[in-house]
Amino acid sequence: METARHIDADLKINPRIVRDILVRFIRWEVERAGFKKAVVGISGGVDSALAAFLAVEAIGSNNVRGILLPYKTSSVDSRDDALTVVEKLSIPYELVDITPMADAYFAMMDSLDNVRRGNVLARLRMIVLYDLSARERALVIGTSNKTELLLGYGTIYGDMASAINPIGDLYKTQVWQLASFMGVPQKIVEKPPTADLWVGQTDEGELGISYPEVDRLLFHLVDERRSKEELIELGFSAELIERVEQMIVRSQFKRRMPLIGKISHRTINVDFRYPRDWNT
Amino acid sequence: METARHIDADLKINPRIVRDILVRFIRWEVERAGFKKAVVGISGGVDSALAAFLAVEAIGSNNVRGILLPYKTSSVDSRDDALTVVEKLSIPYELVDITPMADAYFAMMDSLDNVRRGNVLARLRMIVLYDLSARERALVIGTSNKTELLLGYGTIYGDMASAINPIGDLYKTQVWQLASFMGVPQKIVEKPPTADLWVGQTDEGELGISYPEVDRLLFHLVDERRSKEELIELGFSAELIERVEQMIVRSQFKRRMPLIGKISHRTINVDFRYPRDWNT
Repeated sequence: METARHIDADLKINPRIVRDILVRFIRWEVERAGFKKAVVGISGGVDSALAAFLAVEAIGSNNVRGILLPYKTSSVDSRDDALTVVEKLSIPYELVDITPMADAYFAMMDSLDNVRRGNVLARLRMIVLYDLSARERALVIGTSNKTELLLGYGTIYGDMASAINPIGDLYKTQVWQLASFMGVPQKIVEKPPTADLWVGQTDEGELGISYPEVDRLLFHLVDERRSKEELIELGFSAELIERVEQMIVRSQFKRRMPLIGKISHRTINVDFRYPRDWNT
Repeated sequence: METARHIDADLKINPRIVRDILVRFIRWEVERAGFKKAVVGISGGVDSALAAFLAVEAIGSNNVRGILLPYKTSSVDSRDDALTVVEKLSIPYELVDITPMADAYFAMMDSLDNVRRGNVLARLRMIVLYDLSARERALVIGTSNKTELLLGYGTIYGDMASAINPIGDLYKTQVWQLASFMGVPQKIVEKPPTADLWVGQTDEGELGISYPEVDRLLFHLVDERRSKEELIELGFSAELIERVEQMIVRSQFKRRMPLIGKISHRTINVDFRYPRDWNT
């Protein structure tokens, strides 16, 4: 893992500046929405840890609640790491086991594959997180990074659901940098990223590419808008470029609101368009 | 109810033209997404009935599956009406009782109020609908009308979640017109709209205003962009205008994707923007 973690110069961030921007983003948006508090689902992974660290710096440890949402197959390591995060931040936390809800559904459905099961779990976690946010009068902080969002490696209406997402413009390798800088325990930063849906699952195994490599490709493709020819010159194979482009295009539906059939002169999200934090 | 259903001339639609546009919308979008089939959650209400009628006309009764998702407190009338819809359309249907999942959660949480319970139920229905859509290789058809969407009278990541929504640009009073025209049973068109979350609940009772009246206000306010002074001249009270405007503004978060803290030159949904049905 360590050797795979060489991070390209293009993806290096100035963590102090990025932290300051994202802390102000959270503080400002929580306030604009009329809230004081936030809830974060803490998985034990680096993304949710970083989101929680940023939220605590923005609105204070008394105002951030960590929610642990294990399923019976979630690894004990993940839970330990999640507990380390809430303890390090001294934030109140709550553990809600989603097993009874999930198993009530799985018992009704024959032969669900891993993908369907994983999506059900991600969406049940969303339900609990949103319900507790209502109880706490708190905003739900998102924990999807830019790599996941672009590749569609997340569940629509599940882990991709949130009110505000402080880390959605950071590639995974940039999440690592900022997390290290902010004091997220190094064990959490360095462990192989996993959705923890089955034993031995790792993101990089499933995606078939390492984060440093795919982030470098995404940066040149998306941020720099390089052509296929330029990307090949930069050392990426035509197959990989094609595969990653397809992943981006095919997951676009996860990054947009439902399409509405247009009938009137003013259709929601077509002609009727205001920012999410419209409040005047 | 009948007298309240006088529909203003401004809200009259030509049902033949609107039907044709929406049928083509469904057919085209299902095909563009690479699908042949669709699933619709059938509640027994007029919105989901109309969405199902449109879907059947677009892609055929063999390709539309109705999903009935009762909770133990759902009324028997709603279930009967839902069965009437699937029978009238001769579509395959499936009934999934969400009670075991919901009660597994409610048993863990003290004193949930009606709103929180309703949101949990709406989101559990989304989970089942999305899971069955994955199993069937089908798109989820949305059933939120323009009145609900503008007033925020729906659950984000619950009933507001879908792939394509054929009725999202039709006010409730326009849903009634098109539903009648397409042959949705008159009993369903005429019954008082309800989210059916508790006995005796009606939308109009909760909103404190009738659909014909609020639709007329929304039409002048949103579609015609009338000023407050003009709206008062049209007969609306300043209090009502203010209340409805507040409902629209305060629910804007339900109509937009999560906000991402901007760090890069190309941020998802800020500089990186493609249509949901981007597929080239």
